[in-house]
Amino acid sequence: MKNDNFLRALLRQPTEYTPIWIMRQAGRYLPEYNATRKKAGSFLALAKNPAFACEVTLQPLERFALDAAILFSDILTIPDAMGLGLYFAEGEGPKFERTVRTEEDVLRLPVADMDELKYVFDAVSVIRKSLDGRVPLIGFSGSPFTLACYMVEGGGSDDFRLVKSMLYSRPDLLHAILEKNAQSVTAYLNAQIAAGAQAVMVFDTWGGALSDAAYREFSLAYAKKVFAGVTRTAEGRTVPRIFFTKGGGLWLESMAEAGVDALGLDWTIDIGEARRRVGHQVALQGNMDPNALFAPPEAIEREAKRILESFGTGPGHVFNLGHGVSQFTPPDHVHALVEAVHRHSLGASKA
Amino acid sequence: MKNDNFLRALLRQPTEYTPIWIMRQAGRYLPEYNATRKKAGSFLALAKNPAFACEVTLQPLERFALDAAILFSDILTIPDAMGLGLYFAEGEGPKFERTVRTEEDVLRLPVADMDELKYVFDAVSVIRKSLDGRVPLIGFSGSPFTLACYMVEGGGSDDFRLVKSMLYSRPDLLHAILEKNAQSVTAYLNAQIAAGAQAVMVFDTWGGALSDAAYREFSLAYAKKVFAGVTRTAEGRTVPRIFFTKGGGLWLESMAEAGVDALGLDWTIDIGEARRRVGHQVALQGNMDPNALFAPPEAIEREAKRILESFGTGPGHVFNLGHGVSQFTPPDHVHALVEAVHRHSLGASKA
Repeated sequence: MKNDNFLRALLRQPTEYTPIWIMRQAGRYLPEYNATRKKAGSFLALAKNPAFACEVTLQPLERFALDAAILFSDILTIPDAMGLGLYFAEGEGPKFERTVRTEEDVLRLPVADMDELKYVFDAVSVIRKSLDGRVPLIGFSGSPFTLACYMVEGGGSDDFRLVKSMLYSRPDLLHAILEKNAQSVTAYLNAQIAAGAQAVMVFDTWGGALSDAAYREFSLAYAKKVFAGVTRTAEGRTVPRIFFTKGGGLWLESMAEAGVDALGLDWTIDIGEARRRVGHQVALQGNMDPNALFAPPEAIEREAKRILESFGTGPGHVFNLGHGVSQFTPPDHVHALVEAVHRHSLGASKA
Repeated sequence: MKNDNFLRALLRQPTEYTPIWIMRQAGRYLPEYNATRKKAGSFLALAKNPAFACEVTLQPLERFALDAAILFSDILTIPDAMGLGLYFAEGEGPKFERTVRTEEDVLRLPVADMDELKYVFDAVSVIRKSLDGRVPLIGFSGSPFTLACYMVEGGGSDDFRLVKSMLYSRPDLLHAILEKNAQSVTAYLNAQIAAGAQAVMVFDTWGGALSDAAYREFSLAYAKKVFAGVTRTAEGRTVPRIFFTKGGGLWLESMAEAGVDALGLDWTIDIGEARRRVGHQVALQGNMDPNALFAPPEAIEREAKRILESFGTGPGHVFNLGHGVSQFTPPDHVHALVEAVHRHSLGASKA
């Protein structure tokens, strides 16, 4: 591999500089992405076609000196494969034709059939081949709890009223869903690794909406189950695991014990403070506010430097935003960020 | 006063039981509230008429054995009084006719004229008289930063793109707004105290959307300025101050040093852990997930008990939800919560 700084940083090994990638780096802020999406006809047609998925995965690497590629896909492929019927209503985000709310719904829910997700694993293979060792390829999945949110609510939610009503009224039903989700997510990540993914990330986008007690019981416990079943080595190399609970800053010590190599951080926690709290257990990925990319390049550089300095010297930092890059971001500002991180971290990540 | 358990708990003095009130307790989940709102014609007409505001403030006290009343008003009265033109678009939440985005807008922005807010202070007087010493009356304000979010964005926001663009690009402009807001909030709370408010609460609803560094510079620093200027004693009694940053669990130690008596907690932190972190500095208010109120009464009781036990014995706990009660909540479930908190805390809060 030409540039494996990303994989080494996740394992807290020395690197030449602090590697960077950006959540949602293949996305609507890039005109070339929008052109491919238009060609594909829709977001789902784009995600379900391995050639198109490969095309958009590589686009940001052409523009910016990013240190990792991430599979272009959606976190809701699993519930879609369970037969819930994923669709995107114009301007409304993801929706499901069928929801999982009653005891009957839960009993009927299958573990996802990996054959239904072949398009994802095909995309991984094609991307991996096209990358040709340039940078590592990240596979990913939504967390069991985050998938359950969408499956119960039937789409996004402001308050998670339905899934939390189930959590407090019928915890047994939610546990049954989460058990099936955990099995599905484990198989899904393993198939991505088998197809060529070199690191995996679990996105727990909505775990931060839970109370402390509920987070431990309904989100963290099932993430642990997933990581316990995920392939550790492929092609003779460790496959590092990243776990990201948005809004999970209060739970870092417990997350670090979930069988993972690195924690994703949103921007609400100081990364130096996070490092002091988790000690030598895990690497850290993050954590610039995506909105800082609306500032001029000098301010972006200042903010990047502040985060690098807060993390301090020594290995174990993968720079990223604390959440996906906004569709309104000027691509030049992403360029400024990538350059600033590389420039200011030269030597800083060496052992 | 017949029942001052709330005021005593905020000052960490012994109480007969753990007092409870509920954020947004006068609200749309109550049919009698909706009837008064209909009579008034609109939310703003309701909030701006002292007689109606008094009527809805007292409604939840007729139904439930709550230990405090809170002025019925809106956090956006201050920017409205600054001339920004608050209105409510049907089903869309609050909006402003004019926003504060440019240098010129900021220069033109006045400190709020308290004469424009007379209807609020009149409401406080009328409510205080009607309460007749039954329970204490809480006055409140939005935090300088939370008000600035609405003033820059022109309404609610999912991502706070505009206010954060200003924060990262032109921090001087945001500081100038926050300075005027802090002066306005201080005067506003002092006028509420002069009119009869017996405790005050600052709602920093959006501070939790900031990075650690930005929270300290743009939200916490201005909350501190406010508390430094707020009247400490009225009618021979200390006027306790509560500070609530939603999503502020990471910053409790710093918030506890903001010149306050109590911190509001959302539901993401374990209240026992919060107590260990802040020690003897402040009382704690919270922290049940409002969505737990969708569960049956037995489950609500279980969750209330869990929180009371996590806080433990000794004074300094005011029970509350971690955010406003949902409009979809069955009023009987609120009744079950109030009863459960009083029943299970008997004696628990004694010194």
